[in-house]
Amino acid sequence: MSKPITVGAPALDQLTVTAPQQGLCQITEDIAAWVRERAVTTGLLTLYVRHTSASLVIQENEDPDVLRDIEDFFLTQVPEDTSLYRHNSEGADDMPAHINGAITQTHLAIPVADGQMLLGRYQGIFLFEHRHRTRPRDIVLHFQGH
Amino acid sequence: MSKPITVGAPALDQLTVTAPQQGLCQITEDIAAWVRERAVTTGLLTLYVRHTSASLVIQENEDPDVLRDIEDFFLTQVPEDTSLYRHNSEGADDMPAHINGAITQTHLAIPVADGQMLLGRYQGIFLFEHRHRTRPRDIVLHFQGH
Amino acid sequence: MSKPITVGAPALDQLTVTAPQQGLCQITEDIAAWVRERAVTTGLLTLYVRHTSASLVIQENEDPDVLRDIEDFFLTQVPEDTSLYRHNSEGADDMPAHINGAITQTHLAIPVADGQMLLGRYQGIFLFEHRHRTRPRDIVLHFQGH
Repeated sequence: MSKPITVGAPALDQLTVTAPQQGLCQITEDIAAWVRERAVTTGLLTLYVRHTSASLVIQENEDPDVLRDIEDFFLTQVPEDTSLYRHNSEGADDMPAHINGAITQTHLAIPVADGQMLLGRYQGIFLFEHRHRTRPRDIVLHFQGH
Repeated sequence: MSKPITVGAPALDQLTVTAPQQGLCQITEDIAAWVRERAVTTGLLTLYVRHTSASLVIQENEDPDVLRDIEDFFLTQVPEDTSLYRHNSEGADDMPAHINGAITQTHLAIPVADGQMLLGRYQGIFLFEHRHRTRPRDIVLHFQGH
Repeated sequence: MSKPITVGAPALDQLTVTAPQQGLCQITEDIAAWVRERAVTTGLLTLYVRHTSASLVIQENEDPDVLRDIEDFFLTQVPEDTSLYRHNSEGADDMPAHINGAITQTHLAIPVADGQMLLGRYQGIFLFEHRHRTRPRDIVLHFQGH
Protein backbone atom coordinates (compact mmCIF):
# COMPACT_ATOMS: atom_id res chain seq x y z
CA MET A 1 0.00 0.00 0.00
CA SER A 2 2.92 2.30 0.94
CA LYS A 3 2.03 5.71 -0.46
CA PRO A 4 3.09 9.20 0.56
CA ILE A 5 0.20 11.62 0.78
CA THR A 6 0.01 15.38 0.89
CA VAL A 7 -2.36 17.47 2.92
CA GLY A 8 -5.24 19.17 1.13
CA ALA A 9 -8.79 19.91 2.22
CA PRO A 10 -9.76 18.44 5.59
CA ALA A 11 -13.44 18.49 6.53
CA LEU A 12 -15.61 18.60 9.62
CA ASP A 13 -19.24 17.60 9.70
CA GLN A 14 -21.95 16.13 11.90
CA LEU A 15 -24.21 13.13 11.39
CA THR A 16 -27.22 12.54 13.63
CA VAL A 17 -28.44 8.97 14.03
CA THR A 18 -31.35 7.54 16.02
CA ALA A 19 -30.93 3.81 16.60
CA PRO A 20 -34.16 1.77 16.14
CA GLN A 21 -33.60 0.13 19.54
CA GLN A 22 -31.04 -0.47 22.29
CA GLY A 23 -27.94 -2.21 20.95
CA LEU A 24 -25.61 -2.09 17.98
CA CYS A 25 -26.85 -0.02 15.04
CA GLN A 26 -24.71 -0.25 11.91
CA ILE A 27 -23.78 3.13 10.37
CA THR A 28 -21.09 1.98 7.92
CA GLU A 29 -23.06 3.03 4.84
CA ASP A 30 -23.88 6.48 6.30
CA ILE A 31 -20.18 7.08 6.87
CA ALA A 32 -19.16 5.64 3.49
CA ALA A 33 -21.70 7.94 1.81
CA TRP A 34 -20.14 10.95 3.53
CA VAL A 35 -16.65 9.89 2.42
CA ARG A 36 -17.89 9.59 -1.20
CA GLU A 37 -19.78 12.89 -1.05
CA ARG A 38 -16.78 14.82 0.26
CA ALA A 39 -14.67 13.22 -2.48
CA VAL A 40 -11.75 12.72 -0.13
CA THR A 41 -8.89 10.51 -1.29
CA THR A 42 -6.34 9.67 1.39
CA GLY A 43 -6.07 10.47 5.08
CA LEU A 44 -7.64 9.74 8.45
CA LEU A 45 -11.34 9.80 9.30
CA THR A 46 -12.25 10.34 12.96
CA LEU A 47 -15.75 9.75 14.35
CA TYR A 48 -16.68 11.25 17.70
CA VAL A 49 -19.97 10.65 19.54
CA ARG A 50 -21.12 13.59 21.68
CA HIS A 51 -22.86 11.49 24.34
CA THR A 52 -21.93 9.45 27.41
CA SER A 53 -24.70 6.82 27.17
CA ALA A 54 -23.97 5.80 23.58
CA SER A 55 -20.64 4.80 22.07
CA LEU A 56 -18.89 3.65 18.89
CA VAL A 57 -17.62 0.17 18.05
CA ILE A 58 -16.11 -1.51 15.02
CA GLN A 59 -17.40 -5.06 14.81
CA GLU A 60 -18.38 -7.95 12.58
CA ASN A 61 -20.80 -6.94 9.80
CA GLU A 62 -21.71 -10.45 8.67
CA ASP A 63 -23.60 -12.59 11.20
CA PRO A 64 -26.22 -10.68 13.23
CA ASP A 65 -25.84 -13.32 15.97
CA VAL A 66 -22.43 -11.85 16.75
CA LEU A 67 -24.10 -8.52 17.47
CA ARG A 68 -26.76 -10.11 19.69
CA ASP A 69 -24.06 -11.98 21.63
CA ILE A 70 -22.07 -8.80 22.15
CA GLU A 71 -25.18 -6.97 23.38
CA ASP A 72 -25.97 -9.84 25.76
CA PHE A 73 -22.45 -9.76 27.14
CA PHE A 74 -22.74 -6.09 28.06
CA LEU A 75 -26.27 -6.49 29.51
CA THR A 76 -25.07 -9.40 31.67
CA GLN A 77 -21.84 -7.79 32.76
CA VAL A 78 -23.48 -4.49 33.71
CA PRO A 79 -27.00 -5.38 34.91
CA GLU A 80 -29.87 -2.90 34.72
CA ASP A 81 -30.42 -3.29 38.46
CA THR A 82 -30.90 -0.09 40.46
CA SER A 83 -29.72 -1.78 43.68
CA LEU A 84 -26.18 -1.74 42.24
CA TYR A 85 -25.92 2.01 41.62
CA ARG A 86 -26.23 5.38 43.35
CA HIS A 87 -27.29 7.21 40.19
CA ASN A 88 -30.78 5.87 39.41
CA SER A 89 -32.75 9.06 38.78
CA GLU A 90 -32.71 8.56 35.01
CA GLY A 91 -33.84 4.91 35.05
CA ALA A 92 -32.35 1.47 35.54
CA ASP A 93 -30.62 1.56 32.15
CA ASP A 94 -28.85 4.90 32.63
CA MET A 95 -25.95 3.89 34.86
CA PRO A 96 -25.20 0.72 32.83
CA ALA A 97 -25.23 2.99 29.76
CA HIS A 98 -22.49 5.18 31.27
CA ILE A 99 -20.40 2.17 32.31
CA ASN A 100 -20.72 0.51 28.91
CA GLY A 101 -19.83 3.84 27.32
CA ALA A 102 -16.64 3.95 29.44
CA ILE A 103 -15.68 0.39 28.40
CA THR A 104 -16.24 0.99 24.69
CA GLN A 105 -15.22 3.98 22.52
CA THR A 106 -16.22 7.63 22.35
CA HIS A 107 -14.22 7.98 19.15
CA LEU A 108 -12.87 5.87 16.32
CA ALA A 109 -10.26 6.64 13.68
CA ILE A 110 -10.24 4.88 10.31
CA PRO A 111 -7.59 5.37 7.62
CA VAL A 112 -8.83 6.22 4.11
CA ALA A 113 -7.03 5.41 0.83
CA ASP A 114 -8.19 5.78 -2.78
CA GLY A 115 -11.42 7.28 -1.47
CA GLN A 116 -12.30 4.17 0.57
CA MET A 117 -12.18 3.54 4.30
CA LEU A 118 -9.65 0.80 4.98
CA LEU A 119 -12.11 -1.35 6.91
CA GLY A 120 -11.35 -5.04 6.98
CA ARG A 121 -13.62 -7.29 4.93
CA TYR A 122 -15.79 -8.17 7.94
CA GLN A 123 -15.63 -4.83 9.75
CA GLY A 124 -18.63 -2.57 10.15
CA ILE A 125 -19.00 0.69 12.09
CA PHE A 126 -21.68 0.69 14.77
CA LEU A 127 -23.38 3.21 17.00
CA PHE A 128 -23.81 1.39 20.31
CA GLU A 129 -27.03 2.75 21.83
CA HIS A 130 -27.07 1.86 25.53
CA ARG A 131 -30.50 3.28 26.43
CA HIS A 132 -33.89 1.59 25.88
CA ARG A 133 -35.55 4.83 24.84
CA THR A 134 -33.37 5.72 21.89
CA ARG A 135 -32.73 9.35 20.98
CA PRO A 136 -30.90 11.30 18.26
CA ARG A 137 -27.13 10.88 18.70
CA ASP A 138 -24.73 13.44 17.26
CA ILE A 139 -21.61 12.00 15.67
CA VAL A 140 -18.89 14.43 14.53
CA LEU A 141 -16.97 13.40 11.41
CA HIS A 142 -13.49 14.85 11.01
CA PHE A 143 -11.34 14.09 8.02
CA GLN A 144 -7.70 15.07 7.74
CA GLY A 145 -5.99 14.42 4.44
CA HIS A 146 -6.76 15.27 0.84
CA MET B 1 -21.64 22.41 10.88
CA SER B 2 -20.16 21.31 7.53
CA LYS B 3 -17.07 23.47 7.04
CA PRO B 4 -13.92 22.88 5.05
CA ILE B 5 -10.76 23.66 6.98
CA THR B 6 -7.20 24.25 5.89
CA VAL B 7 -4.12 23.09 7.68
CA GLY B 8 -2.11 25.66 9.57
CA ALA B 9 -0.13 25.44 12.81
CA PRO B 10 -0.41 22.10 14.61
CA ALA B 11 0.95 21.93 18.14
CA LEU B 12 2.41 19.40 20.54
CA ASP B 13 2.60 19.85 24.29
CA GLN B 14 2.56 18.01 27.58
CA LEU B 15 0.34 18.42 30.63
CA THR B 16 1.21 16.76 33.93
CA VAL B 17 -1.64 16.00 36.31
CA THR B 18 -1.63 14.41 39.77
CA ALA B 19 -5.08 13.13 40.73
CA PRO B 20 -6.09 13.85 44.34
CA GLN B 21 -7.00 10.17 44.82
CA GLN B 22 -7.72 6.92 42.99
CA GLY B 23 -10.57 7.30 40.51
CA LEU B 24 -11.85 9.74 37.91
CA CYS B 25 -10.21 13.18 37.99
CA GLN B 26 -11.77 15.75 35.67
CA ILE B 27 -9.29 17.63 33.46
CA THR B 28 -11.71 19.26 31.01
CA GLU B 29 -10.84 22.80 32.09
CA ASP B 30 -7.06 22.15 31.89
CA ILE B 31 -7.51 20.96 28.31
CA ALA B 32 -9.89 23.78 27.41
CA ALA B 33 -7.38 26.31 28.78
CA TRP B 34 -4.68 24.84 26.54
CA VAL B 35 -6.97 25.06 23.49
CA ARG B 36 -7.68 28.73 24.28
CA GLU B 37 -4.03 29.54 24.95
CA ARG B 38 -2.84 28.01 21.67
CA ALA B 39 -5.58 29.97 19.88
CA VAL B 40 -6.39 27.05 17.62
CA THR B 41 -9.57 27.22 15.55
CA THR B 42 -10.52 23.99 13.82
CA GLY B 43 -9.04 20.50 13.77
CA LEU B 44 -8.46 17.44 15.93
CA LEU B 45 -7.09 17.35 19.47
CA THR B 46 -5.50 14.09 20.62
CA LEU B 47 -4.68 13.34 24.26
CA TYR B 48 -2.25 10.54 25.06
CA VAL B 49 -1.40 9.32 28.59
CA ARG B 50 2.16 7.97 28.93
CA HIS B 51 1.35 5.38 31.61
CA THR B 52 -0.15 1.90 31.83
CA SER B 53 -1.77 2.22 35.27
CA ALA B 54 -3.76 5.37 34.46
CA SER B 55 -6.04 5.99 31.49
CA LEU B 56 -8.35 8.52 29.85
CA VAL B 57 -12.15 8.49 29.71
CA ILE B 58 -14.85 10.84 28.47
CA GLN B 59 -17.79 10.67 30.84
CA GLU B 60 -20.67 12.53 32.43
CA ASN B 61 -19.65 15.85 33.99
CA GLU B 62 -22.87 16.53 35.87
CA ASP B 63 -23.71 14.10 38.68
CA PRO B 64 -20.70 12.98 40.76
CA ASP B 65 -22.64 9.80 41.65
CA VAL B 66 -22.13 8.63 38.07
CA LEU B 67 -18.37 8.84 38.59
CA ARG B 68 -18.54 6.95 41.90
CA ASP B 69 -20.67 4.22 40.28
CA ILE B 70 -18.19 3.87 37.41
CA GLU B 71 -15.28 3.62 39.87
CA ASP B 72 -17.17 0.97 41.87
CA PHE B 73 -17.83 -1.04 38.74
CA PHE B 74 -14.13 -1.24 37.92
CA LEU B 75 -13.12 -2.02 41.53
CA THR B 76 -15.69 -4.84 41.66
CA GLN B 77 -14.92 -6.25 38.24
CA VAL B 78 -11.15 -6.27 38.79
CA PRO B 79 -10.65 -6.89 42.53
CA GLU B 80 -7.53 -5.71 44.35
CA ASP B 81 -6.87 -9.29 45.48
CA THR B 82 -3.32 -10.59 45.10
CA SER B 83 -4.52 -14.21 44.99
CA LEU B 84 -5.88 -13.49 41.51
CA TYR B 85 -2.62 -12.31 39.92
CA ARG B 86 0.97 -13.35 39.29
CA HIS B 87 2.29 -9.77 39.27
CA ASN B 88 1.93 -8.56 42.87
CA SER B 89 5.33 -7.03 43.55
CA GLU B 90 4.01 -3.47 43.19
CA GLY B 91 1.01 -3.89 45.47
CA ALA B 92 -2.54 -5.26 45.29
CA ASP B 93 -3.75 -2.33 43.21
CA ASP B 94 -1.09 -2.57 40.49
CA MET B 95 -2.38 -5.45 38.41
CA PRO B 96 -6.01 -4.19 38.53
CA ALA B 97 -4.58 -0.83 37.39
CA HIS B 98 -3.05 -2.44 34.30
CA ILE B 99 -6.23 -4.38 33.50
CA ASN B 100 -8.44 -1.32 33.92
CA GLY B 101 -5.98 0.60 31.75
CA ALA B 102 -6.36 -2.04 29.02
CA ILE B 103 -10.18 -1.84 29.18
CA THR B 104 -10.31 1.95 29.02
CA GLN B 105 -8.33 4.36 26.77
CA THR B 106 -4.70 5.34 26.46
CA HIS B 107 -5.68 8.09 24.05
CA LEU B 108 -8.69 10.20 23.14
CA ALA B 109 -9.36 12.37 20.10
CA ILE B 110 -11.76 15.31 20.23
CA PRO B 111 -12.72 17.47 17.24
CA VAL B 112 -12.35 21.24 17.65
CA ALA B 113 -14.39 23.92 15.81
CA ASP B 114 -14.51 27.69 16.30
CA GLY B 115 -11.85 27.35 18.98
CA GLN B 116 -14.00 25.00 21.10
CA MET B 117 -13.76 21.27 21.71
CA LEU B 118 -16.93 19.65 20.33
CA LEU B 119 -17.74 17.90 23.61
CA GLY B 120 -21.37 17.05 24.17
CA ARG B 121 -23.24 19.09 26.77
CA TYR B 122 -22.72 16.46 29.49
CA GLN B 123 -19.26 15.26 28.45
CA GLY B 124 -16.17 15.85 30.54
CA ILE B 125 -12.60 14.61 30.04
CA PHE B 126 -11.18 12.54 32.90
CA LEU B 127 -7.83 11.16 33.92
CA PHE B 128 -8.64 7.74 35.38
CA GLU B 129 -6.06 7.12 38.12
CA HIS B 130 -6.04 3.42 38.94
CA ARG B 131 -3.49 3.46 41.78
CA HIS B 132 -4.15 4.36 45.43
CA ARG B 133 -0.87 6.24 45.75
CA THR B 134 -1.38 8.85 43.05
CA ARG B 135 1.59 10.19 41.08
CA PRO B 136 2.23 12.80 38.38
CA ARG B 137 0.79 11.56 35.08
CA ASP B 138 2.11 12.92 31.78
CA ILE B 139 -0.53 13.60 29.14
CA VAL B 140 0.65 14.58 25.66
CA LEU B 141 -1.58 17.04 23.79
CA HIS B 142 -1.39 17.00 20.01
CA PHE B 143 -3.42 19.34 17.85
CA GLN B 144 -3.68 19.05 14.10
CA GLY B 145 -5.53 21.81 12.30
CA HIS B 146 -5.32 25.58 12.25
CA MET C 1 8.08 19.98 25.11
CA SER C 2 5.82 22.76 23.69
CA LYS C 3 6.71 23.01 20.02
CA PRO C 4 4.76 24.24 17.03
CA ILE C 5 4.98 21.90 14.06
CA THR C 6 4.19 22.32 10.40
CA VAL C 7 2.61 19.80 8.13
CA GLY C 8 4.81 18.01 5.64
CA ALA C 9 4.71 14.49 4.25
CA PRO C 10 2.12 12.20 5.84
CA ALA C 11 2.39 8.50 5.08
CA LEU C 12 0.17 5.46 4.88
CA ASP C 13 1.38 1.88 5.04
CA GLN C 14 0.44 -1.61 6.13
CA LEU C 15 2.18 -4.05 8.45
CA THR C 16 1.12 -7.69 8.64
CA VAL C 17 1.82 -9.56 11.87
CA THR C 18 1.12 -13.16 12.84
CA ALA C 19 1.20 -13.63 16.62
CA PRO C 20 2.99 -16.79 17.79
CA GLN C 21 -0.03 -17.73 19.93
CA GLN C 22 -3.23 -16.37 21.45
CA GLY C 23 -2.59 -13.35 23.67
CA LEU C 24 -0.53 -10.18 23.71
CA CYS C 25 2.18 -9.98 21.04
CA GLN C 26 4.50 -6.99 21.32
CA ILE C 27 4.99 -5.03 18.07
CA THR C 28 6.69 -1.90 19.47
CA GLU C 29 9.94 -2.51 17.60
CA ASP C 30 8.15 -3.17 14.29
CA ILE C 31 6.37 0.16 14.62
CA ALA C 32 9.51 2.00 15.78
CA ALA C 33 11.40 0.61 12.77
CA TRP C 34 8.72 1.99 10.45
CA VAL C 35 8.90 5.41 12.12
CA ARG C 36 12.70 5.43 11.64
CA GLU C 37 12.49 4.20 8.05
CA ARG C 38 9.98 6.86 7.04
CA ALA C 39 12.22 9.47 8.70
CA VAL C 40 9.25 11.31 10.16
CA THR C 41 9.90 13.97 12.79
CA THR C 42 6.79 15.27 14.55
CA GLY C 43 3.12 14.42 14.32
CA LEU C 44 0.60 11.70 15.10
CA LEU C 45 0.91 8.01 14.31
CA THR C 46 -2.33 6.03 14.06
CA LEU C 47 -2.45 2.22 14.02
CA TYR C 48 -5.60 0.48 12.78
CA VAL C 49 -6.20 -3.29 12.87
CA ARG C 50 -8.43 -4.55 10.05
CA HIS C 51 -9.98 -7.43 12.02
CA THR C 52 -12.73 -7.95 14.62
CA SER C 53 -11.15 -10.88 16.49
CA ALA C 54 -7.81 -9.18 17.18
CA SER C 55 -7.22 -5.76 18.71
CA LEU C 56 -4.55 -3.27 19.80
CA VAL C 57 -3.47 -2.41 23.34
CA ILE C 58 -0.75 -0.29 24.90
CA GLN C 59 0.53 -2.02 28.01
CA GLU C 60 3.47 -2.67 30.28
CA ASN C 61 6.60 -3.79 28.40
CA GLU C 62 8.61 -4.86 31.46
CA ASP C 63 7.25 -7.82 33.43
CA PRO C 64 5.77 -10.62 31.26
CA ASP C 65 3.61 -11.64 34.25
CA VAL C 66 1.57 -8.48 33.69
CA LEU C 67 0.74 -9.69 30.19
CA ARG C 68 -0.19 -13.18 31.41
CA ASP C 69 -2.45 -11.66 34.10
CA ILE C 70 -4.18 -9.45 31.53
CA GLU C 71 -4.73 -12.43 29.22
CA ASP C 72 -6.16 -14.46 32.13
CA PHE C 73 -8.52 -11.65 33.01
CA PHE C 74 -10.01 -11.60 29.52
CA LEU C 75 -10.22 -15.41 29.31
CA THR C 76 -12.03 -15.52 32.66
CA GLN C 77 -14.34 -12.62 31.97
CA VAL C 78 -15.37 -13.89 28.54
CA PRO C 79 -15.25 -17.71 28.76
CA GLU C 80 -14.71 -19.89 25.69
CA ASP C 81 -17.95 -21.72 26.42
CA THR C 82 -20.32 -22.28 23.50
CA SER C 83 -23.33 -22.56 25.81
CA LEU C 84 -23.05 -18.80 26.39
CA TYR C 85 -23.30 -17.69 22.76
CA ARG C 86 -25.50 -17.98 19.67
CA HIS C 87 -22.58 -17.59 17.23
CA ASN C 88 -20.54 -20.79 17.64
CA SER C 89 -20.00 -21.87 14.03
CA GLU C 90 -16.39 -20.64 14.03
CA GLY C 91 -15.35 -22.33 17.29
CA ALA C 92 -15.59 -21.69 21.02
CA ASP C 93 -12.96 -18.93 20.88
CA ASP C 94 -14.61 -16.88 18.13
CA MET C 95 -17.37 -15.11 20.05
CA PRO C 96 -15.06 -14.29 23.01
CA ALA C 97 -12.65 -12.90 20.40
CA HIS C 98 -15.30 -10.50 19.11
CA ILE C 99 -16.32 -9.43 22.62
CA ASN C 100 -12.73 -8.87 23.71
CA GLY C 101 -12.16 -6.94 20.50
CA ALA C 102 -15.11 -4.68 21.38
CA ILE C 103 -13.74 -4.05 24.89
CA THR C 104 -10.21 -3.22 23.72
CA GLN C 105 -9.10 -1.04 20.77
CA THR C 106 -9.37 -1.29 17.00
CA HIS C 107 -7.07 1.71 16.69
CA LEU C 108 -4.40 3.55 18.67
CA ALA C 109 -2.87 6.99 18.17
CA ILE C 110 0.60 7.83 19.44
CA PRO C 111 2.21 11.27 19.21
CA VAL C 112 5.69 11.45 17.67
CA ALA C 113 8.36 14.09 18.44
CA ASP C 114 12.00 14.29 17.36
CA GLY C 115 11.48 11.12 15.32
CA GLN C 116 10.44 9.09 18.39
CA MET C 117 7.05 7.82 19.51
CA LEU C 118 6.20 9.48 22.82
CA LEU C 119 5.58 6.18 24.59
CA GLY C 120 6.01 6.23 28.34
CA ARG C 121 9.04 4.42 29.73
CA TYR C 122 7.06 1.26 30.48
CA GLN C 123 4.69 1.36 27.53
CA GLY C 124 4.76 -1.16 24.72
CA ILE C 125 2.42 -1.59 21.74
CA PHE C 126 0.73 -4.98 21.48
CA LEU C 127 -1.34 -6.85 18.95
CA PHE C 128 -3.94 -8.69 21.04
CA GLU C 129 -4.67 -11.95 19.20
CA HIS C 130 -7.91 -13.38 20.53
CA ARG C 131 -8.00 -16.62 18.50
CA HIS C 132 -6.14 -19.87 19.29
CA ARG C 133 -5.33 -20.49 15.65
CA THR C 134 -3.38 -17.33 14.89
CA ARG C 135 -3.46 -15.80 11.41
CA PRO C 136 -1.84 -12.86 9.61
CA ARG C 137 -3.30 -9.60 10.92
CA ASP C 138 -3.18 -6.45 8.81
CA ILE C 139 -2.36 -3.27 10.70
CA VAL C 140 -2.60 0.04 8.81
CA LEU C 141 -0.06 2.70 9.84
CA HIS C 142 -1.04 6.30 9.17
CA PHE C 143 1.26 9.18 10.01
CA GLN C 144 0.23 12.81 9.85
CA GLY C 145 2.92 15.41 10.44
CA HIS C 146 6.34 16.04 8.98
